[in-house]
Amino acid sequence: MSIDLARRATAECLGTAFLLAVVIGSGIMGERLAGGNVAIALLANTLATGAGLVTLILTFGSISGAHFNPAVSLADATQGGLPWRDVPVYILAQIAGAFAGVAVAHVMFGEPVFFASTHVREGSAQLVSEFVATFGLLATIWGTVRTRPTAVPFAVGAYITSAYWFTSSTSFANPAVTLARAASNTFAGIRPADAPGFIVAQLLGATAATAMFAWLVPSLPKVASRVVEQRRAEQRQEDAA
Amino acid sequence: MSIDLARRATAECLGTAFLLAVVIGSGIMGERLAGGNVAIALLANTLATGAGLVTLILTFGSISGAHFNPAVSLADATQGGLPWRDVPVYILAQIAGAFAGVAVAHVMFGEPVFFASTHVREGSAQLVSEFVATFGLLATIWGTVRTRPTAVPFAVGAYITSAYWFTSSTSFANPAVTLARAASNTFAGIRPADAPGFIVAQLLGATAATAMFAWLVPSLPKVASRVVEQRRAEQRQEDAA
Amino acid sequence: MSIDLARRATAECLGTAFLLAVVIGSGIMGERLAGGNVAIALLANTLATGAGLVTLILTFGSISGAHFNPAVSLADATQGGLPWRDVPVYILAQIAGAFAGVAVAHVMFGEPVFFASTHVREGSAQLVSEFVATFGLLATIWGTVRTRPTAVPFAVGAYITSAYWFTSSTSFANPAVTLARAASNTFAGIRPADAPGFIVAQLLGATAATAMFAWLVPSLPKVASRVVEQRRAEQRQEDAA
Amino acid sequence: MSIDLARRATAECLGTAFLLAVVIGSGIMGERLAGGNVAIALLANTLATGAGLVTLILTFGSISGAHFNPAVSLADATQGGLPWRDVPVYILAQIAGAFAGVAVAHVMFGEPVFFASTHVREGSAQLVSEFVATFGLLATIWGTVRTRPTAVPFAVGAYITSAYWFTSSTSFANPAVTLARAASNTFAGIRPADAPGFIVAQLLGATAATAMFAWLVPSLPKVASRVVEQRRAEQRQEDAA
Repeated sequence: MSIDLARRATAECLGTAFLLAVVIGSGIMGERLAGGNVAIALLANTLATGAGLVTLILTFGSISGAHFNPAVSLADATQGGLPWRDVPVYILAQIAGAFAGVAVAHVMFGEPVFFASTHVREGSAQLVSEFVATFGLLATIWGTVRTRPTAVPFAVGAYITSAYWFTSSTSFANPAVTLARAASNTFAGIRPADAPGFIVAQLLGATAATAMFAWLVPSLPKVASRVVEQRRAEQRQEDAA
Repeated sequence: MSIDLARRATAECLGTAFLLAVVIGSGIMGERLAGGNVAIALLANTLATGAGLVTLILTFGSISGAHFNPAVSLADATQGGLPWRDVPVYILAQIAGAFAGVAVAHVMFGEPVFFASTHVREGSAQLVSEFVATFGLLATIWGTVRTRPTAVPFAVGAYITSAYWFTSSTSFANPAVTLARAASNTFAGIRPADAPGFIVAQLLGATAATAMFAWLVPSLPKVASRVVEQRRAEQRQEDAA
Repeated sequence: MSIDLARRATAECLGTAFLLAVVIGSGIMGERLAGGNVAIALLANTLATGAGLVTLILTFGSISGAHFNPAVSLADATQGGLPWRDVPVYILAQIAGAFAGVAVAHVMFGEPVFFASTHVREGSAQLVSEFVATFGLLATIWGTVRTRPTAVPFAVGAYITSAYWFTSSTSFANPAVTLARAASNTFAGIRPADAPGFIVAQLLGATAATAMFAWLVPSLPKVASRVVEQRRAEQRQEDAA
Repeated sequence: MSIDLARRATAECLGTAFLLAVVIGSGIMGERLAGGNVAIALLANTLATGAGLVTLILTFGSISGAHFNPAVSLADATQGGLPWRDVPVYILAQIAGAFAGVAVAHVMFGEPVFFASTHVREGSAQLVSEFVATFGLLATIWGTVRTRPTAVPFAVGAYITSAYWFTSSTSFANPAVTLARAASNTFAGIRPADAPGFIVAQLLGATAATAMFAWLVPSLPKVASRVVEQRRAEQRQEDAA
């Protein structure tokens, strides 16, 4: 891997910070302006998050892989992608970035730096939603990274745009995001007591999708280890152009 | 064809399940949050479905072709694409997946697993709409798969985004989707009695578009049989990069 | 030019018909569902039209060039693109298709086949808008067709998405579309008496943009004549893949 | 650089004029039609601006680089991209274009050519927002221009779509845009007294992002100077196709 870990961890931290600033910030803005219509607030939140993800993955993808998500880093490691020794650093960087992003969003909107959410998100329907949401996210990644790596940013952005609406939990699908959203008593928050269940469901969903696609695409393990190489090759190709 | 039928059928089943989860789930969410404004509910439903289709076709396209639609599988077979012996398996996988997706959406939103729709969709305007909607869908596929295969996911996603609004039926354009939506008494449902007419109109539309494009693009039949080969070649090319 | 005129004219006719079905149909649907909020109706109309244009240009671009617009065909001819002898056929096909599309939309929504619009669109602000709208459309085409031909469908779709909102006329920017919309007394209609002024402003805007870009991009005339060749080369390249 | 400065400056002027026409025009249209719901007005404004940016960068990128923004031109010059001697011309062209665009928007909507805004945008939350907004914009540019130059128009369009909602200032992120919006007492305006603070915050954000990415992507300075070369090479490649 040609880029050193300090730079890659910084990219993960910065990217996850922006992701949370987008999720929390656009949730606050949407709710403030929507005049009580929750669908309009969520449409704004969705548009900002989907478009933001496209940008962030395009921006940081060639540096760190643009995981921004412990479930993705872990799944990638199980398939021989990210080296296991880098996984703890990636996850810490993601969690630190997520909380930093929440703080920045709060400052931009004149809210307290952190304040625990009281937004109840409990019950089996929500847990099934998080399982499905994270299954779909990992399916999207495993289904595209092999055959169409340049389409990954658009596939993931489109997936989350869709998933905000087809799951009753609005698809957190990310343990670092879940932890940080517990520290925001705003539109996109989640009561801290509800976070652990979300995270368990997310990890189960990620595991199931990774297992399914390891069978569905037999060459996946071998290919996963080559993704970084592919990225570097694409880059060389574009540099040569 | 390098990928065995079991994997391709699984991809069709899984992809169609996600498609229905998106259509039904985002319909429920949109209606619950929109405060009675049907246009806002349909905007949410449209955004989720269009973006979801982009993701699903990118994810499953290189495995099974990402038909998710008996009308597409049949049309593809008539042009020498999908082998006729695989058609029944594809269609069964699509229908099974469609019902599974409806069930998952219902569980995610705390609704009964299946319950027959009472949403009336009848009359000649609706039937003309389904003919036009499916004509347009197949035109989009035949018009892009030949010259710009990598643009197909975006073309189809954009087409359905548009078609939800320019037809009075909101463009089902898919017999498997029509059957499964009859089992959901929610925003996106259709009364079972209205489903057969929709399916007939869809098959007629698909047939007309396929005939039109067989003339419009004289090399289509020959090309269609090469689509899978093209996909494999694209993949080799990206692997080599 | 390898594709015969009959097929190209059919593609222009069919594509323009779909374009008008999208514009008129989504306008009717938007207005019916929006509960009196014109912004929501126009958002739906915009989303459908922008996405529809992406699809239609992807679908028909490699057959006829996907002009769907007399102003584009004329401008292309002045720069050595479309042969002058084909221009009248293109324009007739576009106008016939436009009226057919209006009729299909009306049938799909249970309206009279044709009925003159009473939607007043007059005054200098509207005429300036049509000049600017068509200037921008031709600028988009001339600015992208030369350097990034595969991006043209997305550039034009995004342009119209934007132009529906930044001009007071909602950017007709197309003489064939203007004529046909005069035959629809619905959301997207225009009073027949206001159509001639719109068309004059459109042709002036197209002329100004073409002159500007002939200077801005000195190689444009020479390049324009090669656009069809480029398209065929792209196709060969993809076929070879 | 093969394109002379007169043409490049014209492209910057024309592109920035269209950008402002989009921002101001769609703001007016959105506010007029939204029936008092500010979220709906801002959704329309966002959709038009994001889509407009995609179009404008695709259209003018290969001529002038499509900066449309003094902060971008300055940052590019510090990294060895735009020659310093061209910077003043670029900035003057951008400011002149911005005011022209505001005037055109006002004429299209029957407003006075210029009239000072009374829209108060003050306080530290707004200034932090502009710092973050411009940091993100430059991060997006530096993160994509190196590895995926053809994705820049989509990355920037998606970024601004997101940033309109996740910052409390709605992300001006552009000194020329800020000055010109002070001359429009409409939805998108800013009180002249608040403009200087915005511009300082923007320049600080641009500086911080440029420094961060100079470290994060060690080859950036060397690469930046080759961006124009890359663009020309891409063009030759497409011409050859």
